[in-house]
Amino acid sequence: MLIVQKFGGTSVGDLDRIQNVAHRVSRTKNKGHDIIVVVSAMSGETNKLVDYAEHFSKNPSRGDMDMLLSSGERITASLLSIALQELGHDSVAMTGRKAGILTDTSHTKARIENINPRAMKEAIKKGKIIVVAGFQGVNEHGDVTTLGRGGSDLSAVAIAGAIKADLCEIYTDVSGIYTTDPRIEPKAKKLDKISYDEMLELASLGAKVLQSRSVEMAKKLNVNLVTRTSFSDEEGTLICKEENIMEAPLVSAIALDRNQARISLMGVKDKPGIASDIFNKLAEAEVNIDVIIQNKSHDGTTNIDFTVLVSDLHNAKSVVDEFVKTGDIDADSYNEEICKVSVVGVGMKSHAGVAAKAFSTMADNNININMIATSEIKISMVIDEKYAELAVRGLHEAYELDK
Amino acid sequence: MLIVQKFGGTSVGDLDRIQNVAHRVSRTKNKGHDIIVVVSAMSGETNKLVDYAEHFSKNPSRGDMDMLLSSGERITASLLSIALQELGHDSVAMTGRKAGILTDTSHTKARIENINPRAMKEAIKKGKIIVVAGFQGVNEHGDVTTLGRGGSDLSAVAIAGAIKADLCEIYTDVSGIYTTDPRIEPKAKKLDKISYDEMLELASLGAKVLQSRSVEMAKKLNVNLVTRTSFSDEEGTLICKEENIMEAPLVSAIALDRNQARISLMGVKDKPGIASDIFNKLAEAEVNIDVIIQNKSHDGTTNIDFTVLVSDLHNAKSVVDEFVKTGDIDADSYNEEICKVSVVGVGMKSHAGVAAKAFSTMADNNININMIATSEIKISMVIDEKYAELAVRGLHEAYELDK
Repeated sequence: MLIVQKFGGTSVGDLDRIQNVAHRVSRTKNKGHDIIVVVSAMSGETNKLVDYAEHFSKNPSRGDMDMLLSSGERITASLLSIALQELGHDSVAMTGRKAGILTDTSHTKARIENINPRAMKEAIKKGKIIVVAGFQGVNEHGDVTTLGRGGSDLSAVAIAGAIKADLCEIYTDVSGIYTTDPRIEPKAKKLDKISYDEMLELASLGAKVLQSRSVEMAKKLNVNLVTRTSFSDEEGTLICKEENIMEAPLVSAIALDRNQARISLMGVKDKPGIASDIFNKLAEAEVNIDVIIQNKSHDGTTNIDFTVLVSDLHNAKSVVDEFVKTGDIDADSYNEEICKVSVVGVGMKSHAGVAAKAFSTMADNNININMIATSEIKISMVIDEKYAELAVRGLHEAYELDK
Repeated sequence: MLIVQKFGGTSVGDLDRIQNVAHRVSRTKNKGHDIIVVVSAMSGETNKLVDYAEHFSKNPSRGDMDMLLSSGERITASLLSIALQELGHDSVAMTGRKAGILTDTSHTKARIENINPRAMKEAIKKGKIIVVAGFQGVNEHGDVTTLGRGGSDLSAVAIAGAIKADLCEIYTDVSGIYTTDPRIEPKAKKLDKISYDEMLELASLGAKVLQSRSVEMAKKLNVNLVTRTSFSDEEGTLICKEENIMEAPLVSAIALDRNQARISLMGVKDKPGIASDIFNKLAEAEVNIDVIIQNKSHDGTTNIDFTVLVSDLHNAKSVVDEFVKTGDIDADSYNEEICKVSVVGVGMKSHAGVAAKAFSTMADNNININMIATSEIKISMVIDEKYAELAVRGLHEAYELDK
């Protein structure tokens, strides 16, 4: 098999851990597989470089930042390649440029446009293990670029797609995807498989193992993605096409997002375009809206409630306050003491009654549902934050995820 | 003027010093000059990376080492560029590759083959200050290479030659070239100017300010080289063509090299080719020979004395011992308690009596001269190490270098 293995900052956090990664890669190679390794910077290294830059400027040139920040991954990649040679392997470290990762010109948050895998294919043909510096590429001007948050995962997935690898393993300090957060429900079980779409719902709902960006690319390029731990040999979770999961369960996982705040707008004037005006202004301020509900009041005005990320709340308030000033809204209120509990599963597409069970589970536990949002494979409920654990455990049991 | 300024590891040793360098560059720019800055890694950084690599392997792949070691200079270059922007300048950091430094394929000790200054010229035309990561280039395969010891100086000189800079300033913690080591002779004076050939003699004689390699390239490309300190505004020493020095003094400087050992071969058999055999074997063992004297003994055998670097003594002994074993040499002896004192000056080309004064100075101080070697612009004398300071001070006074 041709396997891409990606190791994050914690997995290569110091020289001993890099040595451990070398042993793991070596074992896989000795089983007869071809391997491309993608590495992040040693944990703390990127933050150190950012601190250095901020010592000089709060607003440094993004091109210079990319030259600075791309160093961390180059260091890890060359060290790991050197460690692999000492274990008797023929290996070579490659920068993003050498690996053929071509990006657009958006420094510090570039998008991968294309991968030219020629150099990698040649090296694989010669039996070499390739160690690629993740998180970086090169733009059309020949300047190094970086891919932003989660960039090394993205490098790995894009490379796996470009060279048609059989597997792309993302190693972190977490052993896989669970039916829910094991810190809340100790009966949570690790999933063997999960579909791209379910994983996308979980990623956007705040599961921190993988970023949506990488899962979306894996889906697009049809990459078999595995998330597993670098600290043991435990098998991880395969994220793949829905068709490859023989018997998809009705519900795969219960997700919890505590990072939500609710904004309530009371007495929104009933004139054309006012709601769209509010949400356009929020979009301009880069506030992402999640759940929205709207209802007519008996006096002819409208109440609109919506949720935003807690980190966007300040910006959202500024926008909304303007509308209160002009009188287009009577009053506004804010609530950070909420959370969003979601039931995710591709199986619910073809089964009725999944939502009903969620609502009755809430009722059985005396939890009031403030807002509801659904998609084809997800039911999200906004509730008071104090009920978060109770709701998660109740739903986990109701859908028999501990079985 | 178009000025290349190179700052070594000590000058950019921490964030405050990088800030100081930014202020210095800024002042030069504000005088209306165009500037290309070349920087080394922060002092200690390269050693740290070498230690990391040696943690894994005593014999790491040299290509991977180059990817590793080139990171240090990239970090300094991007930080300095960011600091310059904060001072209100338009600046851009460039890797060796971006600056167009093309080298051969000898990883970790590559030679510069060519410089394509297109990107630098464009940036200069736009009024930008360029900050180049020194010590590195790129080979014909597109892989990063490093230039070995003194590599950043070499980057600066080569760039200055390629873009026909008016001046190439090398900033170190030393304020220039002195008539002799001021720690030995406090009356030593800083030279305003010195010719390339004199500097080459001084560099090869152990003056540590500049490596021969950079001076040779400056001579070849006719680069006006200045060595000066980054810790004050004191003027440095200009190293230039002999023709540009109006009144060259008879003698410019007295150099001392303590790093020599003497090897004496007694009773070398008087058969054809034996001496050349010995020196060929020494060359194969990469032992550099400096001064040689040979004299016939009255019994028909020959005595040969020569000096080598102390660091080569071990290798030299191994070679010589083989000849003693076979009986081609009767006996050998070694002396590390020697040093080499040299009188350097282009003026002596056209003046007699310079050597005579050196010898009589030794005699006046009761110093026995063991060996003598001369070139057109240099007289070297090997003496017992205990007389080193006495000889240096005596010669410094005899040639009136304190005037």
